[in-house]
Amino acid sequence: MNGIYLDNMATTQCRPEIFDAMLPWFMEHFGNPLSLHKLGQEALVAVENARSQVAALVNSAPDEIIFTGTGTESCNFAVKGLAQAYAKKGRHLVISAIEHHAVFNPVKYLEKNGYEVTEVPVDASGLVDPEDVAGAIRPDTVLVSVMLANNEIGTIQPVAEIGAITRQRGVLLHADGCAAVGNIPVDVAALGVDALSLSGHKFNGPKGAGALYLKKGTRITPLIHGGVQEQGRRAGADNVPAIVGLGKAAELAAAGMSERVSRITAMRNRLVRGILDNIDEVYYNGHAEARLPGHVNVAVNFVEGEALLLLLMHEGIMASSGSTCTSKALKASHVLSAIGLPEQVCQGSLQLTLGAGNTIAEMDKVIEALPRVVSRLRAMSPLYKKSAAKA
Amino acid sequence: MNGIYLDNMATTQCRPEIFDAMLPWFMEHFGNPLSLHKLGQEALVAVENARSQVAALVNSAPDEIIFTGTGTESCNFAVKGLAQAYAKKGRHLVISAIEHHAVFNPVKYLEKNGYEVTEVPVDASGLVDPEDVAGAIRPDTVLVSVMLANNEIGTIQPVAEIGAITRQRGVLLHADGCAAVGNIPVDVAALGVDALSLSGHKFNGPKGAGALYLKKGTRITPLIHGGVQEQGRRAGADNVPAIVGLGKAAELAAAGMSERVSRITAMRNRLVRGILDNIDEVYYNGHAEARLPGHVNVAVNFVEGEALLLLLMHEGIMASSGSTCTSKALKASHVLSAIGLPEQVCQGSLQLTLGAGNTIAEMDKVIEALPRVVSRLRAMSPLYKKSAAKA
Repeated sequence: MNGIYLDNMATTQCRPEIFDAMLPWFMEHFGNPLSLHKLGQEALVAVENARSQVAALVNSAPDEIIFTGTGTESCNFAVKGLAQAYAKKGRHLVISAIEHHAVFNPVKYLEKNGYEVTEVPVDASGLVDPEDVAGAIRPDTVLVSVMLANNEIGTIQPVAEIGAITRQRGVLLHADGCAAVGNIPVDVAALGVDALSLSGHKFNGPKGAGALYLKKGTRITPLIHGGVQEQGRRAGADNVPAIVGLGKAAELAAAGMSERVSRITAMRNRLVRGILDNIDEVYYNGHAEARLPGHVNVAVNFVEGEALLLLLMHEGIMASSGSTCTSKALKASHVLSAIGLPEQVCQGSLQLTLGAGNTIAEMDKVIEALPRVVSRLRAMSPLYKKSAAKA
Repeated sequence: MNGIYLDNMATTQCRPEIFDAMLPWFMEHFGNPLSLHKLGQEALVAVENARSQVAALVNSAPDEIIFTGTGTESCNFAVKGLAQAYAKKGRHLVISAIEHHAVFNPVKYLEKNGYEVTEVPVDASGLVDPEDVAGAIRPDTVLVSVMLANNEIGTIQPVAEIGAITRQRGVLLHADGCAAVGNIPVDVAALGVDALSLSGHKFNGPKGAGALYLKKGTRITPLIHGGVQEQGRRAGADNVPAIVGLGKAAELAAAGMSERVSRITAMRNRLVRGILDNIDEVYYNGHAEARLPGHVNVAVNFVEGEALLLLLMHEGIMASSGSTCTSKALKASHVLSAIGLPEQVCQGSLQLTLGAGNTIAEMDKVIEALPRVVSRLRAMSPLYKKSAAKA
């Protein structure tokens, strides 16, 4: 790859060790894990090994891990499957105002089908107040869904505190961990969640494999009905190579966690400092400490995000203007609105997400290029000139 | 691989040309197709190229193809998504008695949620009578779902005739084409279907990629809600390598179709002849002509299927006792029951499914081994001895 890749929240590069682990399962050992013969049984062993690796990453039992095709499928499965399985208790859900569309949209679907939803706000740093969750819970509340870390601004939620409340109130808790798992330590027992979604391609695993942690004894209605795969909870032929890759990614993520978190955090801090020191009128979004190590979201006033991205591309820098999953939607981000960022400033949002493959030299390149690019765009902005004249 | 693989209905070996096409998309070109930068845009081009290749295989327009993670997901999406999108018209569905569980189980789910279902029977060869479908359609019927070819007995249904009826009656038609597409010519226009499911790993493509053909203008409720992927109809990060592989598999399947069908049919006929000539009390299930080229399903009276499979494994022959997706369910196949096979005979069912990689020499090896293995098992069967003594 040529260029500086700072779009690791959209997807990450599959690591060679992970790809090597997947390789034998495409052509050589291509069996279906449900087949009783040798080729099937060795695939089954590989899938179960991956299940243990994923379980170890989040501190669950292996049989609490259900493989899915994507993180989005895992979130849909959790939200709809738990709401339906426990509908007799009630039809009220609580979510945060900054959930990913993978949670937000299935919740909207449920809302159209007889469920009620309460959205809990976030503060200016993107944090949910656990007391607000407590206040939103009603006797007919079935499920609370709060993301572990936000994909746009990187804020890490106080899920353990929310978990203490949901446990005490007898309500299920799902956490969308797609942006977090593999990037920060995650322990389902410590968090007190009943369900947690994760996605392999967010931490250098392959695309095509996600998982749902589901606490033992929790009932769930399948999203995909059919064969007996995944104990009858998620039908469809196992994507063996991708599952093996997800397992390997989990193993590597767990092994190198603390070193990687420190190294990426240091790079991020250098980048943020460089941006804030060299560009005026820039908002650093998210929480100062409670944030993903590699996550930088800034809103640059008086510039347009798409133009910024284009000029950065000319400099060989690949970034994003927000959530990749809605990049074509051309709407102001619901996350930036929820933290109270003015509409005009939202237009200049820029997301730089670092991964294990980035270097200090790359950060310095961005620190050099970004102010230059911003100046060039602002030179064309009548609003900026007016504001500068006033100051 | 050592041994003779005759379990191609469970999954097929990914062809080297297909794997080679996928290879660059894991590590080198790893972008998310929704990203606006170079890595994203080249992935987008690859996905759209694959969409055209799949469209060409089934004679649809590219934008009528929606990628899914599996064939099962595609079937669930079609059945639930169409039933929900058109629920205002009514809540009655018609299916055949021998649908795969990927259709059967979502239909059962709908039945628990306010829908009514009529199951149309099949004859002894597994064929649906289109007149029975016509008779089952009511004013409140929304959807007919009949599989193109059955995965257990290989019978190819008269879907074009059924399509003529559903079009005339203004009812939607979904065909589960997972066992058929890539293995026989399939033309959605000629069939008159509104929706068709397919699965890449059933025709030498990779696991992790299926698709739904959905006729232009047909509404559908998403199964997986979230981001804007697949025109907002199937959210979740695209599995780019698997989609590229599915596209390549479609291209190769289309190019070599007639040669492959003839070659596999000739091998199958030789195998069937060899079995019927050398084993007594064996039932050849399915239709004599209207069947998948590589599909052999026999029920061997007085033997137990699992024991048969085990002994065949010792001979290096990998086969199945029926649908792999239910191989752990330990129930008599609903398909064999539906064609009227006596319960006792069902126990001895054996499915040998041929693929492009098989050879005539392998068929001859099976023709030599199978009678020997059956004799050995029957020598232990008191029922067989009694029957033989009577004869």
